[in-house]
Amino acid sequence: MIMAEQQHPVEAIGWAARDKSGVLSPFKFSRRATGEKDVTFKVLYCGICHSDVHTIKNDWGNTNYPSLPGHELVGVVTEVGSKVQKFKVGDKVGVGCIVGSCHSCDNCANDFENYCPKILLTYNSIYYDGTPTYGGYSNIMVANEHFVIRIPDNLPLDACAPLLCAGITTYSPLKFFGLDKPGMHVGVVGLGGLGHAAVKFAKAFGVKVTVISTSPGKKKEAIEQLGADSFVVSHEPDQMKGVMGTLDGIIDTVSAAHPLLPLIGMLKSHGKLVLVGLPVKPTELPVFPLVLGGKIVAGSCIGGIKETQEMIDFACKTQHNG
Amino acid sequence: MIMAEQQHPVEAIGWAARDKSGVLSPFKFSRRATGEKDVTFKVLYCGICHSDVHTIKNDWGNTNYPSLPGHELVGVVTEVGSKVQKFKVGDKVGVGCIVGSCHSCDNCANDFENYCPKILLTYNSIYYDGTPTYGGYSNIMVANEHFVIRIPDNLPLDACAPLLCAGITTYSPLKFFGLDKPGMHVGVVGLGGLGHAAVKFAKAFGVKVTVISTSPGKKKEAIEQLGADSFVVSHEPDQMKGVMGTLDGIIDTVSAAHPLLPLIGMLKSHGKLVLVGLPVKPTELPVFPLVLGGKIVAGSCIGGIKETQEMIDFACKTQHNG
Repeated sequence: MIMAEQQHPVEAIGWAARDKSGVLSPFKFSRRATGEKDVTFKVLYCGICHSDVHTIKNDWGNTNYPSLPGHELVGVVTEVGSKVQKFKVGDKVGVGCIVGSCHSCDNCANDFENYCPKILLTYNSIYYDGTPTYGGYSNIMVANEHFVIRIPDNLPLDACAPLLCAGITTYSPLKFFGLDKPGMHVGVVGLGGLGHAAVKFAKAFGVKVTVISTSPGKKKEAIEQLGADSFVVSHEPDQMKGVMGTLDGIIDTVSAAHPLLPLIGMLKSHGKLVLVGLPVKPTELPVFPLVLGGKIVAGSCIGGIKETQEMIDFACKTQHNG
Repeated sequence: MIMAEQQHPVEAIGWAARDKSGVLSPFKFSRRATGEKDVTFKVLYCGICHSDVHTIKNDWGNTNYPSLPGHELVGVVTEVGSKVQKFKVGDKVGVGCIVGSCHSCDNCANDFENYCPKILLTYNSIYYDGTPTYGGYSNIMVANEHFVIRIPDNLPLDACAPLLCAGITTYSPLKFFGLDKPGMHVGVVGLGGLGHAAVKFAKAFGVKVTVISTSPGKKKEAIEQLGADSFVVSHEPDQMKGVMGTLDGIIDTVSAAHPLLPLIGMLKSHGKLVLVGLPVKPTELPVFPLVLGGKIVAGSCIGGIKETQEMIDFACKTQHNG
């Protein structure tokens, strides 16, 4: 097997996991030369996503080592291929979770590359040339321009990086399930990276937000810093009871095992509980309240490229509103 | 406690269960006099729903005995109250699962009486006057006109009865989840009373239908009598594999415990698995394929009164098409 340093002509360096210990260490590898439809950029910032942690520890059992994570990377274009139309040297750009898809299936045709059966992920996939994909914990990146997102000049690059996964993962279901209408009431379960983004987007849409968390200590952050309207502690029955039957939808960001029954109870009829976390084990679905209440449980996984650009542009437009 | 025969002025007779043995026997009871907004009708036919069986056997643990089931009843109006506007003596009418709701909650305001928290069911509820509701396995019925459905003259009464529960239970989710567009592909799991109605309505909408059943012996009925386009046996992996990722939606009518994983796999991204059966125990929800595939699992329970009338009118209009 060819060493990672010799697979491609362009020297690169990053931080990779060699095993499931969770330790990252410097890793010399290489990037391909800029292809005719490729954009090469210097990576300036990269978010740390919980998926990175899951992957380097092989929590999902599918990690190929060495593993170089990072799918929230932003930087400045240093070279573009001869057929690149959307970008030029010096542009601020980013790459999220996706670097390839088939461009011919129904999902791709409808701008849902995120559900393409042949999706190539920014790390831990095998690219078309047979080499592993390595992510954003590195100094440079090369990607087909279709999967490159433009970052508007007035959006701070560092703050923008996490939007490329956490942002689109929460923006997309709020939009897809129609939970973006002013006056609606949406719950956000879990106040980590995803939950934080969910609250910010929901508030930017004009939606009333209730944060549901196991940690009473997060109330201050939820209300004062993120602008949530209310906060309930999930193991306090009295607090939970007050929300029963009032939510149009819930963005559930928790990947740890947790019961869905109380969340389903919080929904109005036709309300949507959207799961965006990835618990490894199946969970219990209480069918009786789902059927009798006419409730909906859905899964949602990141978002398509077109919508990711839309989300970044929306974040730019609304960044000073709260 | 006042005997059932003496609670109201009008003598009535039906078939009731006295205990969970599953045996029904003749039962003398009484109906209220026709109130000013009530319609009284002679019951000519009543469907037998699986819910009736669950109830008389106390499968759901909430049966009040004596239990007189039946919520698919049709007949001819014999008397109307002074303020009744929609019906007159001699009209063909029916009553489904619902005889009361609050008329003031959001669900009632949106014609979803079926999700009203104060819903009164046709049997096994306590009516506003404090007496038990008794269903359609009886000779006469009295109901508030809001909950009475008009049966068009050219729809055979006997064939029409089961539509009042099985019909609306399958028609409503096909409409609500947009699974009524010609060219779509819908799966129907289970070919009992509900499944039969689901196939007929989906075909009437111009949708391609695949029946998914544990019983190979039902293939002939599904294809030749009901007009399904294809039939797969759920324990034959090769047959199931051929349907993977092809369905826009599934109406799952099975109330016995069964795995959701293969059904979720049959859906396209954004596809909807709608559960209309009522398994007593929670089932296992495989979150990974739900999230990564962007799939939806929903519950749906009968339908509202306005939609029930629409469904009956649609059935009348399309009854000779297949």
